[in-house]
Amino acid sequence: TGTFDFNNDSHRRYNPLTDSWVLVSPHRTQRPWQGQQEKASTGGLPDYDETCYLCPGNARATGPVNPKYESTFVFVNDYAAVKVKQPPYEQSGADDNDLKSRLLQAQGTRGTCFVICFSPKHNVTLPLMNVAEIENVLDTWTALYVKMKTETTFRYLQIFENKGAVMGCSNPHPHCQAWCTESLPSEPAKEFTGLRSYKAKHGTCLLCDYAVVEQQDPVRIVIQNESFIALVPFWAVWPFETLILAKSHTASLVDFSPKQKTDLADLIQKLTIRYDNLFQTSFPYSMGLHQAPVNPLEDETQLSHFHMHFYPPLLRGATVRKFLVGFEMLGEPQRDLTAEQAADRIRAAEQVHYLLK
Amino acid sequence: TGTFDFNNDSHRRYNPLTDSWVLVSPHRTQRPWQGQQEKASTGGLPDYDETCYLCPGNARATGPVNPKYESTFVFVNDYAAVKVKQPPYEQSGADDNDLKSRLLQAQGTRGTCFVICFSPKHNVTLPLMNVAEIENVLDTWTALYVKMKTETTFRYLQIFENKGAVMGCSNPHPHCQAWCTESLPSEPAKEFTGLRSYKAKHGTCLLCDYAVVEQQDPVRIVIQNESFIALVPFWAVWPFETLILAKSHTASLVDFSPKQKTDLADLIQKLTIRYDNLFQTSFPYSMGLHQAPVNPLEDETQLSHFHMHFYPPLLRGATVRKFLVGFEMLGEPQRDLTAEQAADRIRAAEQVHYLLK
Ligand SMILES: O=P(O)(O)O[C@H]1O[C@H](CO)[C@@H](O)[C@H](O)[C@H]1O
Ligand SMILES: O=P(O)(O)O[C@H]1O[C@H](CO)[C@@H](O)[C@H](O)[C@H]1O
Repeated sequence: TGTFDFNNDSHRRYNPLTDSWVLVSPHRTQRPWQGQQEKASTGGLPDYDETCYLCPGNARATGPVNPKYESTFVFVNDYAAVKVKQPPYEQSGADDNDLKSRLLQAQGTRGTCFVICFSPKHNVTLPLMNVAEIENVLDTWTALYVKMKTETTFRYLQIFENKGAVMGCSNPHPHCQAWCTESLPSEPAKEFTGLRSYKAKHGTCLLCDYAVVEQQDPVRIVIQNESFIALVPFWAVWPFETLILAKSHTASLVDFSPKQKTDLADLIQKLTIRYDNLFQTSFPYSMGLHQAPVNPLEDETQLSHFHMHFYPPLLRGATVRKFLVGFEMLGEPQRDLTAEQAADRIRAAEQVHYLLK
Repeated sequence: TGTFDFNNDSHRRYNPLTDSWVLVSPHRTQRPWQGQQEKASTGGLPDYDETCYLCPGNARATGPVNPKYESTFVFVNDYAAVKVKQPPYEQSGADDNDLKSRLLQAQGTRGTCFVICFSPKHNVTLPLMNVAEIENVLDTWTALYVKMKTETTFRYLQIFENKGAVMGCSNPHPHCQAWCTESLPSEPAKEFTGLRSYKAKHGTCLLCDYAVVEQQDPVRIVIQNESFIALVPFWAVWPFETLILAKSHTASLVDFSPKQKTDLADLIQKLTIRYDNLFQTSFPYSMGLHQAPVNPLEDETQLSHFHMHFYPPLLRGATVRKFLVGFEMLGEPQRDLTAEQAADRIRAAEQVHYLLK
């Protein structure tokens, strides 16, 4: 029957960080697509749009007028998912003798949601900004992290960017969000569980070890510099998913040296340029940072190893996305090309942005 | 500071079936939406389409010609995600002294993928079929379940339907899929873990108890009959997510009495009609069955409690969906209305299909 071929035979791969599996079906890349087509992002936006609620000097939907900001600009989301002020509600210890309290468990969640504009220019994105400008974004994130740490008792600051209409972004003005909540959200919580059990078993950091493994045989590495690696994780779910990993065990943004910060800005720029070049479109994704909680408990700071996840939906060109639907929602995430094939493709993309040539 | 108001204050709810959390932000329903608009499904399709690869008598993309079927029609997916024949690949016991074998874990996955057409008519959907026709779909599912049980050693048969272009469905001809795999997929696996630990702790079935709790105070029940309940689970993630739950502890399709089967067909019809009426559009969703594995291990059959999940993306009308993106992917799923509010809305929808009035 021959030998097993990871580039052709179906298999599952294990994600030890979140204790989850993905089904990989590499032979499936060639099926035709007759379904929904996404709009390609053609560019051609003005650098100021008078109807944009994020441009400097414009009024937002709820009334406040943005300052004439010149670099980054942070404000509290006008439609925040969590509020600073609401009555407290502690989850009652589930009463085992009462079915209702056993099965209907809830807890109140206070917090704040921020919007962070990357630039006053309406028509740039991270890959079209220079390294100093991206460093400035990192500084803005760091300042917000410190502010939440010193001024609140909230647990976690989740910084994330939704880029592109297909990822639910309703305004192309370059921006991200940061939601700070009094509870630790599920995803970082799962990762702490994974990091903790690995450490208990092996005495080392899972992500430090993983960085070593990937450097030994760099088939999944897209690009790297002295301080960071961008790679398609062995257990990637989204077609061109990547992970930016600190090479050294660093807990959070505040722990970076100036050199590390410049290197991170450099790698974000290089990775997102390759993304845009892959299908010659403004590459949509959701991206986010995982790091130490702003108000950590016990071993959480020690366990934290700074990284960023990029989850881009496109599969085959600017208009054909991967849908994670029926089998993925009811059964298990499934992907149509291997992580190694995806890494090859991103690596093969040029390093000069197609719009700047 | 007043008392906590579940209809206005942010909170998290716990899903004991999959050990997960959802952030509920009920005050957020009113934010304006300037982002992507979905296409409404206007109907008006012919009952036979000569370009459809699922209509009776037509040729499929890969060559085979469909029979002139008159009820349901099952065939092996021409672009299957798993294959019956490929070399075996057993996950090697992770060698703790070898970083690579510790961190890069994989296992081969054989199986078969089926497509199941619900009807020869190109322009119907479950809510437009009568109860006898839906019962016939249930019989087709049951026969496939029995076939996999008796003819294969595969573990699980995941039956699911992707409905609507927004859910990655590339052909409106009414059909679902069934993927049978030699490994138990993650979602049912998580549910078995939840059911098992609840049983160990309380001696009862989590879903039997949950059905009791919901019937005591039916704020989340949408509709029910003698054998089944359709409800918005307390821990729902998607805006109008529902769960169809067997009232009695029944492991799988093969265990249903004729009465139960008719009742299930009846409830599927009634629920999907209300869905279509909610926004007067062919309501998109991914739906699927969870039941006993076709080749169960140990306690799995005993633990199984048949149910169906419906995950519909629409939030506010036929063209505005909920995006589960940045915060949801990096942090935690978040919803904008409560389960109780959603149940009210679906309950308020009419029971006669808007196209049949
Ligand atoms: O097999 P289909 O319907 O072409 O494909 C659809 O459903 C599959 C199973 O959920 C997904 O993996 C695909 O991404 C989706 O487009
Ligand atoms: O806040 P936005 O950008 O309007 O909203 C977007 O991101 C949020 C956080 O991931 C999601 O909850 C919304 O569904 C999405 O549309």
